Amino acid sequence: MAVQTVATGSSTVDLGPAAALSCRECGHRVPLGPVFACEECFGPLEIAYDFSGYDTEELRARIESGPANIWRYAPLLPVPANVADKPNINPGWTKLVKADNLARELGVTGGLYVKDDSGNPTHSFKDRVVAQALEAARAFGFTTLSCSSTGNLAGAVGAAAARAGLRSCVFIPHDLEQGKVVMAAVYGGELVGIEGNYDDVNRFCSELIGDPAGEGWGFVNVNLRPYYAEGSKTLAYEVCEQLGWRLPDQIVVPIASGSQLTKIDKGLQELIRLGLVEDRPYKIFGAQAEGCSPVSTAFKAGHDVVRPQKPDTIAKSLAIGNPADGPYVLDIARRTGGAVEDVTDEQVVAAIKLLARTEGIFAETAGGVTVGVTKKLIDSGVLDPAKTTVVLNTGDGLKTLDAVAGTGLTATIRPTLDSFREAGLA
Amino acid sequence: MAVQTVATGSSTVDLGPAAALSCRECGHRVPLGPVFACEECFGPLEIAYDFSGYDTEELRARIESGPANIWRYAPLLPVPANVADKPNINPGWTKLVKADNLARELGVTGGLYVKDDSGNPTHSFKDRVVAQALEAARAFGFTTLSCSSTGNLAGAVGAAAARAGLRSCVFIPHDLEQGKVVMAAVYGGELVGIEGNYDDVNRFCSELIGDPAGEGWGFVNVNLRPYYAEGSKTLAYEVCEQLGWRLPDQIVVPIASGSQLTKIDKGLQELIRLGLVEDRPYKIFGAQAEGCSPVSTAFKAGHDVVRPQKPDTIAKSLAIGNPADGPYVLDIARRTGGAVEDVTDEQVVAAIKLLARTEGIFAETAGGVTVGVTKKLIDSGVLDPAKTTVVLNTGDGLKTLDAVAGTGLTATIRPTLDSFREAGLA
Repeated sequence: MAVQTVATGSSTVDLGPAAALSCRECGHRVPLGPVFACEECFGPLEIAYDFSGYDTEELRARIESGPANIWRYAPLLPVPANVADKPNINPGWTKLVKADNLARELGVTGGLYVKDDSGNPTHSFKDRVVAQALEAARAFGFTTLSCSSTGNLAGAVGAAAARAGLRSCVFIPHDLEQGKVVMAAVYGGELVGIEGNYDDVNRFCSELIGDPAGEGWGFVNVNLRPYYAEGSKTLAYEVCEQLGWRLPDQIVVPIASGSQLTKIDKGLQELIRLGLVEDRPYKIFGAQAEGCSPVSTAFKAGHDVVRPQKPDTIAKSLAIGNPADGPYVLDIARRTGGAVEDVTDEQVVAAIKLLARTEGIFAETAGGVTVGVTKKLIDSGVLDPAKTTVVLNTGDGLKTLDAVAGTGLTATIRPTLDSFREAGLA
Repeated sequence: MAVQTVATGSSTVDLGPAAALSCRECGHRVPLGPVFACEECFGPLEIAYDFSGYDTEELRARIESGPANIWRYAPLLPVPANVADKPNINPGWTKLVKADNLARELGVTGGLYVKDDSGNPTHSFKDRVVAQALEAARAFGFTTLSCSSTGNLAGAVGAAAARAGLRSCVFIPHDLEQGKVVMAAVYGGELVGIEGNYDDVNRFCSELIGDPAGEGWGFVNVNLRPYYAEGSKTLAYEVCEQLGWRLPDQIVVPIASGSQLTKIDKGLQELIRLGLVEDRPYKIFGAQAEGCSPVSTAFKAGHDVVRPQKPDTIAKSLAIGNPADGPYVLDIARRTGGAVEDVTDEQVVAAIKLLARTEGIFAETAGGVTVGVTKKLIDSGVLDPAKTTVVLNTGDGLKTLDAVAGTGLTATIRPTLDSFREAGLA
């Protein structure tokens, strides 16, 4: 297995097959380091790999005999070869649930699967991306793991840093709901409330990175973003391996910044290039909530640019009004023959209940968005019900209980058989 | 693999190696059926197996090549051989986390592990037991899955029934917190509030089982209890397999009814008898909250009987004041050289935070009880820090957020670097 060691400044970093950072726009390459924007054109930097020397069947065997978490794919990630031996929270290898009951309700005949990332350690897909950022932080000698967050990410960073023995410092709007504060604070890191909204928090974090006070700090979704984002590739790897090393025909992915969808596409392309799956067409569909649907709006209008929106939806984990990777999402949806669609908050709630009622999976609002969009796209004939379809659930319903707060008792009775019968329950 | 088919009344049931029900007190055997108390002496019935014809290495290989859930142990459970092909929520094979940070804080040198059952589909160990009850319900032709519950069990039953396509009807006290009602209701089954407390709910359920209105109903923790309880054996199997087919020296288990602890002991004994682990001494320790510590009280007093208590603790999932299996727990703790200990609610909260801060695991109050008791037993010299020790976390902190509601922001600042420095965070 080729392991690339790259010099950055005075130190050398070992991030496995990660060879350099490469600009997605202009292709300009720089050595691996804690940078995220191209110095030439300000485009986003992403990881360029050296996969040369990989034998397909050797690689497949190595993956299959690897641990039951994302580190089975270490040869394809920006992490050192011994990553599985280090203390981290080992996310991934979540269930791919064959959703036959849901398929019947939606009229899908070609096989419907839910990739259920609520099974991750802090119950969202964020554990996957934070795990990559943690390795980069270690490689660059950072001692504090940080982020701006309004929810899932705060918990993922707090948990990962705790286990790794790093300091964590998470910034959130000071008036966040108490439940979310508790989830973020319980891991014992610094949790700092910023007097302002989420935009103010982000702006402050960018200032901190440029200041001496931020030295030694790895912001998982800012200066470690190129590494962080690669974690989403593992969703693509797992789906294909769990399907028996086969590409799904159709995959429905939620869109917040759009990064997850673009990295899933990158992951699928890598599997094809490495010969791990047969090269045949697949379609990627993006899912948004109507109250924050800048990419869906652009897709339907045939635009290449995404006009920012002010979010107003219960799907808060997807509520990014100005999604950085929006244009790439449009490109991928169009290139693969997919689409981007949105659903109302009412449809989100109905979809959460539909998934729970049919498959026993309690999804976060983001999962309601993907299931709702899947239903809408089938009803409108855009998704082919005769094809193998994978729907992502990226989070846990326990984190967004408010969305289904209307759900309650079907009856209240006295503790007697007569009362039971009167209620028509017999 | 020997599969036993047993005639019960007019039907035959295939529950794999389960051969009969046997009274734990008097040994009286009856055919497999939806009964839970001995007709001779009213003792509890449990499953008697036919494991004859199992070759140790063949069995081990079969388990190791099985699915990454409890069904890898199907040859040792009261389920049909094809159980993994049926729609169920496939719990188990949760992480055994090597807790080196926690070990350092507690002074454990012999290896400390947390068996983290928050990774189950509905985030508690209840998924393991409900999965067994579901197979029994199918075998006996029941069409409704039911239980009395105040929390974790309601969600586990609702989810399992939804996925299996069975009706569910769960009974809860009518004044339960709204969050718990939502978690139980979202799966779409009947959720019935009983005007009364948990005792009233239980009494009503027992009445319903004896009434024609309850025909076709499987109450997972009443008439299906012998099957249900066996699910806890899988915790023992997994711990040993994950340790490399080795018994832990010491294991710390929470006590509610005591059933889990007794079945873990049963599971360990089976592994020894089947030759899957080396036969050497192990100690089982029971953990209770001080506010509901009938077993711990009896253990310390040297009693063989357990005097009921009125529960008053934040560890509500353990708050059974009159634990049915209490005497068996006392027996096992004494026989193995273990102990039963309890901790205060303050110690429970401190232990939840300790586990989160050191290992990034956010435990339910029951996990705070086991970690707290582990610390107390090490401090008092009862647990040997030089031995391999496994601590169970049976649930998820997201379900008992109130317990750590005092956790919050470490600082609040304005979105400026000056404010950041003033707060001493740099």
